[in-house]
Amino acid sequence: MSHFTEVKLAHASRLINHGPTVLVTSSHGGRGNVMAAAWSMPVEFTPPRIAVVIDKTTWTRELVTASGAFGICVPGAALVDLTHAVGSLSGRSVDKFERFGIRTRPGPVLGVPLLEAGCAAWLECRLIREPHAEDAYDTCFGEVVAAAADSRIFAGGHWTFREDNADLQTIHHLGGGHFVRAGGTLRAAGS
Amino acid sequence: MSHFTEVKLAHASRLINHGPTVLVTSSHGGRGNVMAAAWSMPVEFTPPRIAVVIDKTTWTRELVTASGAFGICVPGAALVDLTHAVGSLSGRSVDKFERFGIRTRPGPVLGVPLLEAGCAAWLECRLIREPHAEDAYDTCFGEVVAAAADSRIFAGGHWTFREDNADLQTIHHLGGGHFVRAGGTLRAAGS
Repeated sequence: MSHFTEVKLAHASRLINHGPTVLVTSSHGGRGNVMAAAWSMPVEFTPPRIAVVIDKTTWTRELVTASGAFGICVPGAALVDLTHAVGSLSGRSVDKFERFGIRTRPGPVLGVPLLEAGCAAWLECRLIREPHAEDAYDTCFGEVVAAAADSRIFAGGHWTFREDNADLQTIHHLGGGHFVRAGGTLRAAGS
Repeated sequence: MSHFTEVKLAHASRLINHGPTVLVTSSHGGRGNVMAAAWSMPVEFTPPRIAVVIDKTTWTRELVTASGAFGICVPGAALVDLTHAVGSLSGRSVDKFERFGIRTRPGPVLGVPLLEAGCAAWLECRLIREPHAEDAYDTCFGEVVAAAADSRIFAGGHWTFREDNADLQTIHHLGGGHFVRAGGTLRAAGS
């Protein structure tokens, strides 16, 4: 049973506000792919827009350009090995969904393949074509058209990190396969 | 005594690879400012380039545009209150360095004001003018021209998060003054 529930578009930026490493999903012409990306960020609250760096040499970039859409899935700590693995080989030569036994569901608006099991959240995005930024910085802009999160860790527009949801806590890549897990929560004075 | 030591430019992206909330510093014509930014990311390893979202209505944006330079300082957990505070008021009406007793040092290449006390690292950046991305997405691109980190938490190109450096561990804004601290380290299989 999935614990995923819809996230309001006004809250979508919060899903990646704290800089987690994400999985970028894509499909076109009957083929799909998933890669890891440490470099993404929101750029606007309303309409919810994000930027993600997708190298121009990747199979994902081809699929995203061709389809005009991509998914941003936020893996939980239990998926750290999978995240590293899908970031370490190209989907040109292997179907990573099949290789790693990854199940996906189609996004509600664009049909982008999205992961739920083991993930904390996903954002379905429409590519905003920006040829110069894509070419010069491999930076792809997208508008979030749907979002959802596992209600055990994100509900009512807020993250809650607790001992009992450690497996869903976001991971943040330091480099070389080393990650930190979003753990101890801090609250700023006056907030 | 400062524990800051130079970080090789080839390693600069690692300082923000894991998505910490940062402080953006700037100065022009004798006035300076510091603001908090949750939205930044590397976009290229070599030359080291980054992107950061700086709203066009901010005083920082004016200073960055006028000077063609900015600093990215990575606050440690001990600066969570300061980070929230400098993100909650405008430098147009108050000198935040003075108000909060913040000491800075000039960057080695461009003279950008940089914070060290309480911070884990800084990156001194030259603005790469991209009028369209700046206008459409408030996204400012920069090339890192110098970088340094506190050797108690980042040395030899690697982060080390330990119990004894918790105050320097990076913070990641969830929204509304709630942060997570980069804490538990995970290592992916095969890495």
